[in-house]
Amino acid sequence: MTSTIPDSTAPGTEAADRGHPTAQPFAQVWTGGSEFELRTFDRPRLAPSESLIRLTAATVCGSDRHTVSGRRPGARPSVLGHEGVGIVEDTRGDVPVGTRVVFSVTSVCGECRNCRRGLSAKCSSVRKVGHESAESEWALSGTYASHIHLPTGVAMVPVPDSLPDGVAATAGCAVATVMAMLEAAGDLSGRRVFVNGIGMLGLTAVGAALARGAAEVVAADPHLDRRGLADRAGAARSVEPGTEIADVDVALELSGAEAGVRSCIDSLGIGGTVVLAGSVTPGPQVSIDPEQMVRGWRTITGVHNFEPHHLAEAVDFLAADGVTLPWEDILGGPIPLRDLPQEFASPTKALRTIVSLITT
Amino acid sequence: MTSTIPDSTAPGTEAADRGHPTAQPFAQVWTGGSEFELRTFDRPRLAPSESLIRLTAATVCGSDRHTVSGRRPGARPSVLGHEGVGIVEDTRGDVPVGTRVVFSVTSVCGECRNCRRGLSAKCSSVRKVGHESAESEWALSGTYASHIHLPTGVAMVPVPDSLPDGVAATAGCAVATVMAMLEAAGDLSGRRVFVNGIGMLGLTAVGAALARGAAEVVAADPHLDRRGLADRAGAARSVEPGTEIADVDVALELSGAEAGVRSCIDSLGIGGTVVLAGSVTPGPQVSIDPEQMVRGWRTITGVHNFEPHHLAEAVDFLAADGVTLPWEDILGGPIPLRDLPQEFASPTKALRTIVSLITT
Repeated sequence: MTSTIPDSTAPGTEAADRGHPTAQPFAQVWTGGSEFELRTFDRPRLAPSESLIRLTAATVCGSDRHTVSGRRPGARPSVLGHEGVGIVEDTRGDVPVGTRVVFSVTSVCGECRNCRRGLSAKCSSVRKVGHESAESEWALSGTYASHIHLPTGVAMVPVPDSLPDGVAATAGCAVATVMAMLEAAGDLSGRRVFVNGIGMLGLTAVGAALARGAAEVVAADPHLDRRGLADRAGAARSVEPGTEIADVDVALELSGAEAGVRSCIDSLGIGGTVVLAGSVTPGPQVSIDPEQMVRGWRTITGVHNFEPHHLAEAVDFLAADGVTLPWEDILGGPIPLRDLPQEFASPTKALRTIVSLITT
Repeated sequence: MTSTIPDSTAPGTEAADRGHPTAQPFAQVWTGGSEFELRTFDRPRLAPSESLIRLTAATVCGSDRHTVSGRRPGARPSVLGHEGVGIVEDTRGDVPVGTRVVFSVTSVCGECRNCRRGLSAKCSSVRKVGHESAESEWALSGTYASHIHLPTGVAMVPVPDSLPDGVAATAGCAVATVMAMLEAAGDLSGRRVFVNGIGMLGLTAVGAALARGAAEVVAADPHLDRRGLADRAGAARSVEPGTEIADVDVALELSGAEAGVRSCIDSLGIGGTVVLAGSVTPGPQVSIDPEQMVRGWRTITGVHNFEPHHLAEAVDFLAADGVTLPWEDILGGPIPLRDLPQEFASPTKALRTIVSLITT
């Protein structure tokens, strides 16, 4: 079931630049539990406005680890992976063949009520990158593969050459979601920001809040090494969960833990806003004090996934001068695609493991 | 302790138009419990940028009733009343003598952190119209009086002649607060709106949401007559509290009741926002489901008082063509100032009783 890509398609070669229209796609197919199979696929026939991307790298998002560990349901068999970067190899859409791109996690209709009002992440017929059955029409939906098939309604954003593959790949889930959170948080200039939970999103949130002019960012995480990462991303202070934080203007919640939500709400000063994004699995209710909300002009808001413009902002953020996320600690690997099952069985310590898709 | 204003100062007379700089101010002074005394006051000496307004009318806001009934603390003795309209009689500021104005409920410094970031309602040294001791420097702080003294930092907005006194007076608390709520609610065009609690603010919210393009407004109130008012203000449907309402884009909570807050939160559809404004006294906590907030991009936000631009929007709203609030049912009176104690003892049924200040 394995296959290899000829060396002549490595980036920078002529074959890569003009696309490689005859290579047979292959992917690591998750079949349930911790099982994967490397399978080849027929090249998809592109409908109008669809594209086929030859992937150069993917990064492993924590939500895939939840799927493989059984904490989150997922279609089986399926090609997982929703953070990736690659080159347009074939298209019936507007982005030219040869363009290096990242892409959204959602395929949306653009016509339903939610799409029309700018909430396409909640499209009534949404399908998701890295979430569809490998036996469906959209077999090549994920990024743990040589190619990804992008149906209509998946946003694509060109990536400047200056961005390394591993960095660029994080745009399509982690970084774009943080951009959506920051939009929900409003103007950050001069603001006091609290980030609860330092994974890939929390770390990005520290850096992005500072890039948008936050006066100060305080980070909380139970793990000392994660707090160290937050410090390196520019946090003024990194604390253990439960440490009292007060008079916060913007609290960004990424842990999904009840205590994390609680501490974000309790941290708010007058006019403060909590943006919740970590709570994506069922959990306990959290109580709020309506009078405190009213008299303090306080806000609690939730964000899940993102809109196309957030993906563009993510690329701009990653490509901007002066952004100093500690990428050497964030990124692990690269590992070849054949080692993906091993990566799920014993994760590297990095926040994001790069899967190189140049060869299997 | 009583006094009368000479007839020659009635609006439209020469004396009124040029101000009446020698008349001695008088006011109904609340002395605690349900007791009032009609007292005369020295004319205040105006500091730079201060103004003295000769009031023509006040309206009785429910929060004053809470103060008099003992449910809300208040300075004693004091001149209550924070909704009013009048004519600039003397000034060391920019608004010319003779201008007919309404004014904000807050006197703010303009320099503290909250003021500088547009949250002047939460100014660190805020003082409030109708809330200060009658024995303080700001003795004439309320609108149940012939004159109100406006210190620095109280916003004033000119009022067009087309607005009757009673209508104009509501701008300075009820209507401006609704404008702040609608700003917090975001774009209302095509939105499905739920208004919980039909007092003066709720009724204004029904009309103002429709004026901003809401597709539909559903109102809830325990009282049949209030539901009738909501219908007359344009509500598509008025229901008893507890009626299930679903898929709401914007829920405006004005009852302050725990069940009201709960029903607003439960009513929200995807991307929906609850704006809480009624919860201004201590009450039970209300639980929220963080996952529902996140996956549904839902928002809960609080609003208390308003900013100067909301007062300007309130006047514009009231003066706009096509605004059809049922003023004949909203406004009661006018009553003379001497009858104010009686009005607190046995309120008229109207949402806002007009206190005429042309004579005692």
